[in-house]
Parts: sequence; structure tokens; C-alpha cells
Amino acid sequence: MNIADLQQPKEGDARMNIADLQQQAEEMVEWLAVYGADPEGGVTRLLYTSSWIEAQQAMDRKMRAMGLDTYYDDAGNLFGRLASEDPEAGTILTGSHVDTVKCGGKYDGAFGIIAGVLALRYLKETYGPPKRNIEVVSLCEEEGSRFPLTFWGSTNITGTAPADHIAQIQDSEGIPFVEAMNKAGFGLGHYRSPLRKDILSFIELHIEQGAILEREQTTIGIVEQIVGQKRLTIECSGEANHAGTTPMGWRKDALRGASQMIVAIMEAADRRGAPLVATVGKIEVEPNVSNVIPDKAAFTLDIRHPQGDVLDAFCEEAVAICFAAAQDRGLQVKVNQHLDVRPVGMDASLLRSIETICQAQGLPYRLMPSGAGHDAQIMAAHYPTSLIFVPSHRGISHNPAEYTSKEDLAAGVQVLIRLLYELGYEKETIS
Amino acid sequence: MNIADLQQPKEGDARMNIADLQQQAEEMVEWLAVYGADPEGGVTRLLYTSSWIEAQQAMDRKMRAMGLDTYYDDAGNLFGRLASEDPEAGTILTGSHVDTVKCGGKYDGAFGIIAGVLALRYLKETYGPPKRNIEVVSLCEEEGSRFPLTFWGSTNITGTAPADHIAQIQDSEGIPFVEAMNKAGFGLGHYRSPLRKDILSFIELHIEQGAILEREQTTIGIVEQIVGQKRLTIECSGEANHAGTTPMGWRKDALRGASQMIVAIMEAADRRGAPLVATVGKIEVEPNVSNVIPDKAAFTLDIRHPQGDVLDAFCEEAVAICFAAAQDRGLQVKVNQHLDVRPVGMDASLLRSIETICQAQGLPYRLMPSGAGHDAQIMAAHYPTSLIFVPSHRGISHNPAEYTSKEDLAAGVQVLIRLLYELGYEKETIS
Repeated sequence: MNIADLQQPKEGDARMNIADLQQQAEEMVEWLAVYGADPEGGVTRLLYTSSWIEAQQAMDRKMRAMGLDTYYDDAGNLFGRLASEDPEAGTILTGSHVDTVKCGGKYDGAFGIIAGVLALRYLKETYGPPKRNIEVVSLCEEEGSRFPLTFWGSTNITGTAPADHIAQIQDSEGIPFVEAMNKAGFGLGHYRSPLRKDILSFIELHIEQGAILEREQTTIGIVEQIVGQKRLTIECSGEANHAGTTPMGWRKDALRGASQMIVAIMEAADRRGAPLVATVGKIEVEPNVSNVIPDKAAFTLDIRHPQGDVLDAFCEEAVAICFAAAQDRGLQVKVNQHLDVRPVGMDASLLRSIETICQAQGLPYRLMPSGAGHDAQIMAAHYPTSLIFVPSHRGISHNPAEYTSKEDLAAGVQVLIRLLYELGYEKETIS
Repeated sequence: MNIADLQQPKEGDARMNIADLQQQAEEMVEWLAVYGADPEGGVTRLLYTSSWIEAQQAMDRKMRAMGLDTYYDDAGNLFGRLASEDPEAGTILTGSHVDTVKCGGKYDGAFGIIAGVLALRYLKETYGPPKRNIEVVSLCEEEGSRFPLTFWGSTNITGTAPADHIAQIQDSEGIPFVEAMNKAGFGLGHYRSPLRKDILSFIELHIEQGAILEREQTTIGIVEQIVGQKRLTIECSGEANHAGTTPMGWRKDALRGASQMIVAIMEAADRRGAPLVATVGKIEVEPNVSNVIPDKAAFTLDIRHPQGDVLDAFCEEAVAICFAAAQDRGLQVKVNQHLDVRPVGMDASLLRSIETICQAQGLPYRLMPSGAGHDAQIMAAHYPTSLIFVPSHRGISHNPAEYTSKEDLAAGVQVLIRLLYELGYEKETIS
């Protein structure tokens, strides 16, 4: 970045060297993706593994090289700090998670950290110390891809982490969570407690992980709500029988019943219309042999909507469909709900600020729900929070083919710089 | 059996001691089930395993104790012979297979051998040497439960065994077929060649493996045709996507498409009506994760009908349903047919003889198709063949709960005795 070009930016940061910012964002994405790189081109950084440790250590060095003070908390979250001269000033926090799914992409989580680091360096170099502390966080965990828990980074910061739960859980190789954490150097009291009372706002930049922005040729998505989500398992039980000797009319075919349920639920979701989404991603059949009528078919149902009442109503409709189909086919059905996350609204005042920034910078934007879960939904219950999307090429995510163009990456960083400037330097109080 | 009671039976075998026959049939079923008995109460006798060898050796001793001459052929089929005084006379063959599925029942296959042994003993003790040789065979294999081949016993007798195929196949533990066969003492030329040119008729007694006889309170099922069978795999390909961020209208959901196909095929089968049966027993979905829209769903379709033209027409209808649903849902579909067994008719003259016997003995009977495959379908292409069913309690088969009452077992043996008497002793020529 050419510092001369970037000093004293006005509305729209007209003098910012955008080409440099694009190049830096792209290079830093590739640089971080080396930690946990898979031979197939993906990235695997599971919580507290060696690739995860190497990534946090490299990020620590990178932040310091870029002029930020750094520190860990005892959960393994890494912070880069641009300190205010006022020790009592609160903190504006930005960032995202450093962990990935197995064989994931280079952008999910990573981009939110990288954007924060680039933004803080720019702000420091351009404006010097802010009125309020500004920090970027490389959150230790969000994906839930190693242990059966999610949002370990953000729940530690907000003081809502499930402390009892972690004593009992282990990864797929039988390594206890606590042992993995301690081996990585955390959970031993060597670092400051993760709980934060000083945070004034949390801003998360993230790839959309959907194709709406790209299809609409829109650069910035400003999230209004993170959808609520219910996850059910529907288990149909019938009677296993010989495929050749059991007349059609005598069958209690669990897979036929489950198929009838899936078709009817999907049709009901179509009728309900966007933004409702309903997904049957998994089905398990027993005995699952070509010449035996199945006696068991269990499938998952994932339902998401930004309004809690619509979510509840559709869930009831889907369950009613299952019971009706089960009766029709002479089956028993058991419905088990194992996730019920309520929709979370993002901060309206921050949303308006981001809209104004996009307009001033001439960036096409839209308001939208987030269909995926993010750390922002954990933070939002405690601090004014905003979630900003940049486009995902073809909507692909959790996949080595995940991609966002350098133009879109830089546009996101531009918006973040301006928002952090307003929150950290300009306003006397947080609205 | 009280010999005195059984001499010179008339039509209906009124003087046969039925109570003794019931007890002997039941005891012999329990006796054979000891070989390969599972701790869970089932039976596992896989081809050429030690439990299979022990069963054939025990059966050999039992046949000899009952007054039959015995011999093996080089495939491992075991024969018990009641020889004619005429060395040129042909052979009336009865029997079934000694192998079982994994954790199968005590009756499937076993009963056809036991019935033959009891019948031959009775005929020998009552009538002495027959005009034609009468043999009972304990066929080495029918189920295909150890190696990827079926009907190894009957195809060797008819000279239609896939000789090239066996050189390449192995069991799930990697043991080559030929090695297993040789270790059991077969395939080495120590015994006579399995190929038979002297067989005049083949009669197989078997449990129904369906619930039609029991529901209709009928004792004897006389099979008219063994159904033809087609087995297909239908593979739907769509696009994997994020369950939260992909609007319903943009999805290419392979499982939704497959469910639509399954429902429509089942409805078409209902419309077509009995005796057509269509079964989707197996489905495999990828990635099969609750929060990802599936990009692959492959399911099997098993279709059976006693008429080849109906079988072909329904198969075409099912495939058309799949292509229409795939187009509707934006999916690719691949249909792979990997089994096409034509229906096999049983011998009409034997069928009439069995009807007359049932009428004379006052046994309720019906004509019916066999929905399952049996050795009789292999034999029928070469010799006049008949397949006779006795009831299966609740239609349960390939399961430790398989059960047929001693009354029904004995009724089957009664019919067999009379039929073998007519074929072996009475008629001058086979019709």
C-alpha cells in the first residue's frame, strides 16, 4: 500500500490505493492457506492441531510485523491491538475464526481476520492512535469440525462457553478436548481470561457462502438477521420383508414412507417461499439391502428462516406431514429435535452506517439474511454487532473450490476500514 | 414312524402315522440347525466353511443310517440314493440347498433336503426298490452369501455353472473361491463330475418365505412360475450446496429427486397391482451430511413378475419416471441394469399331479408364483421340475425367527412321498 495515497481519506476513501489493497488481500489469503494446506488444494485447520498452532503463531508474527500489539487469551483466541491513548476507552472488535472444516476453503473465516489486520494497519499508518481501542481477533474455533462443539472462540469471549460439556467430549480419535487444549498451551491459565467486558462493537467480515450476491452482481451484503435454525431427525419404522414374496399392499416400507415425507416437506417449503430453506441432507436406511423391504429409514431435516414465528410454523407443518405420511403407510414415526437456534438480529444503527458507507463508496450492496451461522450471532447477544458479506463464487464453500475475487475482497476491506474509522476515531460515543 | 402303519398306503396315505412324521420332521430340522448354529439362534452355513463341511458330513451319515446309498459330486453336492434294480433307469431327484445366508433360519433350503430324506426312507421301507432311481440331493450352494455367485449346486448339475467366473472371485476376507473349494476337498476330481444326464424330474420342497399361505390358511403352495426379476441401480447427480445459503429454487437436490422417483415408482407398482412387486431396498447419499444439499443419491430397484412382458413394461415405466423426475429437478440420472432373470414356468403335468394329490389327501392348496429365486428355476430349463411350498410363519425368512409348524412340514413330506411314489414306482413312463 502506498502510504502517501492513503492519508486523510475522505468519504469513499477516494485516495486509497485500491490496486494495492486487492493485491495484499489476495496474497494474505494465499499466505494463510499454507497452514493446514491439503494435497488436494483445500485447507484443514482443526482446533488445537499442529496446523492450527502454526497458523496462530504465524498470524501473531504477521500482526506484530504490521505494527499491532498482540496477545492470546486462555482459550487460544489471538488478538492484534491498536491501542487508544485512553486506558479506559472501550474496544471495537473485528475478526473471524481461524479454524476450518476438513478440506475446506481458503476464505471461510480466514478472510475476516485478514480484512481486520489490513484495516488496522491502514488505520494506524494513516491516522495513528484511535480514540477507542481497535482490535482484530483470530478466533480459535467456530466450525465444530474436530470436537462436538461450535463457536468455542466467541462463546469464551462472551462468557457463554459450555464449561461442563468440554470435560466429557473428545475428537474422533478419542483425544479428550481438555488434553488437546492443554497440549496446545491453553486452558492452563498461562494467558488472560477470555471473558471480555470492554467490547463496544463487534464487526465480522465473511464470505457469503451462497450465490445471491454474485447472481445479483452485488459486492456487499449487509446482514439484517442471522437465520434461526431447527434441526430434526425423523425416524420411520416399518417391517423388513422379502422383496419377492411380500405383496405391495402388505408392506410397511420405511423408505417409501420417508420418501413420501421428503417430497411433501420440500413441496411445502416451495409453497412457503424464500427466505425459508428446508434441507434433507442425510438418510440412513436399514438393512439397506436391495432385496429386503427396509424397516428403518431415518433422515435429518434442517430448516432455516430469519423470523422465529415462521420457523416454528414451518417446523410444525413438516412434523404434521411426517405423521400423516406415517399413518398412510402404516409406519411408526419418531421426531427428535436436536437443534433450535433462534434468529439473531444485527445492530440496526451499525447497519445504517454500513449502508451509508457503501453508498458513499459507490459499492453495490443489499440487505440480506445470513443462512449460515457465524460468530456474529454469539456476539450479538452481548455487543452491538454487524456481519458483512462479500460474494462467494458460485456460492461454493466448505470446499477447496471456495473463491472470492481480489476486487470483492478489497471492497470488503474498504468498507471495514471506513466503519472502524467511524467507530474508533470519529464518534464521541457509540450510538 | 411305525412301519406297520405305513405299509401299502392308498390314495391319501390314510394309514401313514402323521404324528410320527411331524415329530421326525421337526427333530431333523433342529438336528441339522446345530451345524452352523449362531449364538443368536440363527444358522450360518456358508459354502465350503467348516460348519458347511460338518453339515454335509453329518447329512451323509444320516442318509446312510436311513438306508440310502450316498455319494458326493465334485462340486460338493451330496446325494442319497434309493436305487432301482434296472441300471438303465433314469433318476427322480428331490432336494434343496444346505447353505444359508448369514444368520439365517433353520428351514430355508434345509427343509427340502430333510423332506427328501424322510420321503426316501419311507418309500424304501414301505415299497422296497423303485422302478426308477430316486435320489435326494443336499445342494452345496444357492444363496450367494459367501461368494458373488449363486446356484452353484444346481448349475453344476445342469452344466451351466460359470466356470470362468470362479477363477476370479473371492469372499469378503479375500479367500479365493477355488482355494476354499479345494480346501473342502472339492474341485480336485476326487468325486464324480457334477453334470447329470439321467435326471427325469426335479422336485423341490421349500418354505414359502412369504405370508400368503398362512394368511389364506392354505397348507400347500404349488408354484406355477418362478418370477422374473430385474435389478437396477438409479444414480441421480445434482449439486452439493450449503443448506442455509442456497434458495430452494436454485437447488439441484439429488435426494429430493430420488425421493420423488421412489414415490412415483411405488405408486405405479400399486396401480399395476399383484403379482407385480417393486422394491427400493437400498439408497446411498453423498455427502450424507445434515447441512449439505446432497449431490448424489443412488438407489436400487428390484422388480419381479411371473410374466416377462409385464416385467419389461413396468421396468420401462419405472425408468421413464426417473428420467422425467430428473428433468423436473435439474438432475442427471444414470440407470444401470445388473440383473435380468426371465420368469421360469414349472412343469404343467407335475403341477396337475400335485393338485390331484392335495385333493386326495384333503390338503388345502393353491397355485401361486414364487417371488423368490430357487434351485428349481435352474433345473426347470433341463428337466421337468416342480416347486412346492409350505407356509412360513408371518412370512419371515433369512432370519433366526423363520418358522414352519410341524403340521405343515409333515403335510409337505406327505405330498412329496406320494409324488415320488407315482414318479418312481407307478408310472411306466414319465409323462
